[in-house]
Amino acid sequence: MKPEAPKAEVGRVIAVLEEFGLQARVISPHPRVVLGVVEEMDRRLVERVSARLEGMPGVEEVSRFESSWKLASREFHPEPTLVEVGGRLVGGEEVLVIAGPCAVESRQGFLEAARGVALAGAAALRGGAFKPRTSPYSFRGLGREGLEILAEARRLTGLPVVTEVLSASEVELVARYADVLQIGTRNMQNFSLLEAVGEVDRPVLLKRGMMATIKELLLSAEYVLARGNWQVMLCERGVRTFETSTRNTLDLSAVAVLKELTHLPVVVDPSHAAGRRELVPALARAAVAVGADALLVEVHPRPQEALSDGRQSLTLEGFQDMMRELQAVAQAVGRRVAGGRS
Amino acid sequence: MKPEAPKAEVGRVIAVLEEFGLQARVISPHPRVVLGVVEEMDRRLVERVSARLEGMPGVEEVSRFESSWKLASREFHPEPTLVEVGGRLVGGEEVLVIAGPCAVESRQGFLEAARGVALAGAAALRGGAFKPRTSPYSFRGLGREGLEILAEARRLTGLPVVTEVLSASEVELVARYADVLQIGTRNMQNFSLLEAVGEVDRPVLLKRGMMATIKELLLSAEYVLARGNWQVMLCERGVRTFETSTRNTLDLSAVAVLKELTHLPVVVDPSHAAGRRELVPALARAAVAVGADALLVEVHPRPQEALSDGRQSLTLEGFQDMMRELQAVAQAVGRRVAGGRS
Amino acid sequence: MKPEAPKAEVGRVIAVLEEFGLQARVISPHPRVVLGVVEEMDRRLVERVSARLEGMPGVEEVSRFESSWKLASREFHPEPTLVEVGGRLVGGEEVLVIAGPCAVESRQGFLEAARGVALAGAAALRGGAFKPRTSPYSFRGLGREGLEILAEARRLTGLPVVTEVLSASEVELVARYADVLQIGTRNMQNFSLLEAVGEVDRPVLLKRGMMATIKELLLSAEYVLARGNWQVMLCERGVRTFETSTRNTLDLSAVAVLKELTHLPVVVDPSHAAGRRELVPALARAAVAVGADALLVEVHPRPQEALSDGRQSLTLEGFQDMMRELQAVAQAVGRRVAGGRS
Amino acid sequence: MKPEAPKAEVGRVIAVLEEFGLQARVISPHPRVVLGVVEEMDRRLVERVSARLEGMPGVEEVSRFESSWKLASREFHPEPTLVEVGGRLVGGEEVLVIAGPCAVESRQGFLEAARGVALAGAAALRGGAFKPRTSPYSFRGLGREGLEILAEARRLTGLPVVTEVLSASEVELVARYADVLQIGTRNMQNFSLLEAVGEVDRPVLLKRGMMATIKELLLSAEYVLARGNWQVMLCERGVRTFETSTRNTLDLSAVAVLKELTHLPVVVDPSHAAGRRELVPALARAAVAVGADALLVEVHPRPQEALSDGRQSLTLEGFQDMMRELQAVAQAVGRRVAGGRS
Repeated sequence: MKPEAPKAEVGRVIAVLEEFGLQARVISPHPRVVLGVVEEMDRRLVERVSARLEGMPGVEEVSRFESSWKLASREFHPEPTLVEVGGRLVGGEEVLVIAGPCAVESRQGFLEAARGVALAGAAALRGGAFKPRTSPYSFRGLGREGLEILAEARRLTGLPVVTEVLSASEVELVARYADVLQIGTRNMQNFSLLEAVGEVDRPVLLKRGMMATIKELLLSAEYVLARGNWQVMLCERGVRTFETSTRNTLDLSAVAVLKELTHLPVVVDPSHAAGRRELVPALARAAVAVGADALLVEVHPRPQEALSDGRQSLTLEGFQDMMRELQAVAQAVGRRVAGGRS
Repeated sequence: MKPEAPKAEVGRVIAVLEEFGLQARVISPHPRVVLGVVEEMDRRLVERVSARLEGMPGVEEVSRFESSWKLASREFHPEPTLVEVGGRLVGGEEVLVIAGPCAVESRQGFLEAARGVALAGAAALRGGAFKPRTSPYSFRGLGREGLEILAEARRLTGLPVVTEVLSASEVELVARYADVLQIGTRNMQNFSLLEAVGEVDRPVLLKRGMMATIKELLLSAEYVLARGNWQVMLCERGVRTFETSTRNTLDLSAVAVLKELTHLPVVVDPSHAAGRRELVPALARAAVAVGADALLVEVHPRPQEALSDGRQSLTLEGFQDMMRELQAVAQAVGRRVAGGRS
Repeated sequence: MKPEAPKAEVGRVIAVLEEFGLQARVISPHPRVVLGVVEEMDRRLVERVSARLEGMPGVEEVSRFESSWKLASREFHPEPTLVEVGGRLVGGEEVLVIAGPCAVESRQGFLEAARGVALAGAAALRGGAFKPRTSPYSFRGLGREGLEILAEARRLTGLPVVTEVLSASEVELVARYADVLQIGTRNMQNFSLLEAVGEVDRPVLLKRGMMATIKELLLSAEYVLARGNWQVMLCERGVRTFETSTRNTLDLSAVAVLKELTHLPVVVDPSHAAGRRELVPALARAAVAVGADALLVEVHPRPQEALSDGRQSLTLEGFQDMMRELQAVAQAVGRRVAGGRS
Repeated sequence: MKPEAPKAEVGRVIAVLEEFGLQARVISPHPRVVLGVVEEMDRRLVERVSARLEGMPGVEEVSRFESSWKLASREFHPEPTLVEVGGRLVGGEEVLVIAGPCAVESRQGFLEAARGVALAGAAALRGGAFKPRTSPYSFRGLGREGLEILAEARRLTGLPVVTEVLSASEVELVARYADVLQIGTRNMQNFSLLEAVGEVDRPVLLKRGMMATIKELLLSAEYVLARGNWQVMLCERGVRTFETSTRNTLDLSAVAVLKELTHLPVVVDPSHAAGRRELVPALARAAVAVGADALLVEVHPRPQEALSDGRQSLTLEGFQDMMRELQAVAQAVGRRVAGGRS
């Protein structure tokens, strides 16, 4: 719409679209209203709709987009989306580091870890209360008790918390405690879960499936956006290849490709990809250099005692060292690592 | 337990295990009772439990298994599991062919397809009422209406129906209509869904994730078995590789590996792996030759009109030809393709 | 050309092509002469050449092919190519089994293995005199002495021998001893080696790179064909994936795809793909069922003593059992396993 | 050996090793002589050799290494190897950028590109005179004429040149012209070529096979080292995965893993991995951040006219911009990009 178009004109365009059986979505409310339609249309219908709209008052331009992800695409929404996490913005100048143990294993241990990473400059806490586990006999998290501990750590440190949600039926519960809902790699195509988080008012951190293409990741984000939740961050965490010296192969090109294709912020998780803490700082530096907006890093006060993923967790000392190095790299690419509380 | 061990002796063994905080599972009720314990135990506990059990009346042997999947392993349960589908057994001498369109798209079309594949010798019908789709804008199935059509097709043909269930909250609904619950490739590690189907009395057809190792497939099966549902069939449907001339790379070695490692029947879906109908009959023959217990094949009366996966669907004529070829190969390996109604 | 076209007319067509700077290749000498040109031409040149040829006496049809492999394509040469190996034809009704140890390790041992596989019905012997090894410190074959032993085994059994050649400078030497020159998976894109074997009068068994697409395999074959050697057999031997329970993932779909795209015979090597002898017979059956023209199988009288690949070698007893099973599957698909000497 | 051990004592140790049938290699000549033996030995032999050596005058320590690559391992040779290229050292504080067109296509064009990249701060020139091509009908380089042009570009710019050698028979010719011999991804396991470059006095840039593991890359380097050429640089250039939005997936973790395992310098080629110039600067920044010692980048004055790989070549302007960004990242990690002539 033209910048000066009054609400009534916008309303008439929406009504016309509805006559054609199409649903108008507000892509951007200002400085000018941009409306979008995502339904598949054949060429004839596109022509008829376009012809009808082009003559209407207030309409500035009618365009068509080709990518199969629409709401997530840069064509549709050229400006970067900034997602607010605990008062900071992901996707802008600052690079946020989200840190903590893989799982919340005990109140004591988690609070200790939270204090440590907060002091070392983490911008958010991570920790799993519900853990997806390949084997039914592995530790699967403390559940609601873990959520309570996360909330306590937030009060203690002032930092927002990121935690995973495993099924649609638990979204409401987890959203009561968490600042950011994480969708894990195994659930990237759990479409009912995607739709459920699309309907709550919480940022979503969507991990790429470990063998999902970039296009599929964007289509999964599209499920969330299509339900009205635009606060989506995409996370690269390594893909499966034939290489065995790392747990997965971190695909840092994916960050550059995503920056071209989408307006959504991009997060990198070097810990799961590497599988060994020795490799994490170097990969974290590379992630910042390639353009990541945030990092998700596993840190544990005593990694050798962790019930899951201890081998890939940094110690608090290792985390502090890494944070210093990251600041230098961030400045080299015109950004800075967000420090401590906002 | 010894074959002649009375129930009381079995009961006392179970009670002893419970004293140690372990849960006894009945692996096999006859001809002799076999009890299993799946909890992780350290070496000392294993020794103490073994020492205690070995002296008890009725106990024949105490053994320890190493694989991380337990209930699914051949060590634990050496005899092949036979899963009943519409009066036929999958996992025995017969090879069952489950056929039909990818999705239930209309009553008329599905009933026509069902009649066609039934006449050509299919042992079960397949068709999706709930379809997982990479894009939120693709056709996602007719839902409950699709289930009604499946039930009508069953009445019409006398054949059992296999259909996919997408989320834990829909398991009960789908189980009311379907003879076999299919878990799709994207849901292989949707653990809440696996546990939900583990609690109903319906055979489960569990597809391998397109990115999953064989070990992970077995651990996902373990989720279902651990909830008490032993009627699980494993399905190879192609994995992701760098090769682009097929949709996925059908991993027929996986059939041979699974036959070594597990007692559960193995199904092969050549249609999704190939992505083109021209390749399906040859891959189906190979699947029978390598030892598959059943095939899952897409057939559509008019593939060019299908809303999904038409390119990989056989025509009815193509399906009839394939069935003739399969019978010859099945006989060459000492089996036979189950014909028509049981 | 028309079937009755005299040589002089063929000669004039060749001369015209040369005027355009193009080289005519005889694709098929009878029943009618088919000439091919493989040079890249722009559309204008194609039109000018076509216009000129269409009026000439003896010319029946002028057509254009699109695939980037030309000489290897079915479009260019619709009839299957039959490659003669020791008096038998690969690519026709018979399925040939080429068997023997991975490497020629000793005269005594190799002759024993050769006799064993000959008695069990192998149609050719395999054995490496020059072995490509990932590590420079591994056993790399007996070299010329190995070639002498292979020749002795041929005299003893009457069977032709297949052996690998590793570099262009050794082609002449190996061709003096071997009936078939094998190009290994690591050399599929060693283009100087491909050109060298393209210039000798020996059938070539070209293994797919463990990382190569089917299209790249065809383009490598094209290197051999373009030098005038049309006796090329393509061999699928497993590709690299993330799966670790087999050494490589045997891509049996590749056999079906190759049968569509090319006229060259297709061989399957189940031993290297599986990496464990237990899986070989099942994969061999599947390979015959999917349409392989020949199999390449490792057999060792005492696998536990082999210097390389013993783990994947069948025993002589295992090989005999497999041969019986294969005959049944071959018959089920309208073929037969070639028995003993031709 | 002890630092002060006289030559005669070293000689006696070598003689003793030869009595055992082992060959001593000089791993490091100063400040103390380190001798290595790479032959496989069983435990008994190791014990006998160790017992014998430990008593000898001048011997400081006898140790055993486990990795299957020995000469290339950090255990064997803890100090980083510095490879001299045109007066600069690769593997030390400086990061070298090697730039130029994919292939030498014409004298005029190549000299223009060479001047351009030299002015923008490249430390070496790259350009192929012999090109490995998947199809026999693609442009395969100017051959010897291309080598002459490379030599002229070196005189003009004062920069050393890196060019690929395709077969053992051409090593001597290429080594007469080139400062660094490149082994391409398709030749990483062309063992006769590796041994040939192991015998000349030229640094070798060894590219990782596009589906080779890191271990295999090290074993290929071992072939070169074992022939006495210690000037080996390892190059990560992307591996094959299922992802299609980039030509290959650049495995930057491999840089960190190689830095742990080997003393050899590591080069990254972001151009071939990305396949599109838009992605190259971001990947180059990440490569420097993760620890690469040098970059190999395709630059073409007019990419749209390139006969090969134009799509992934930077323009001269793009290259200049990238060099500025790289300097900042290099400084952030305590290094600097080497500027212009040495």
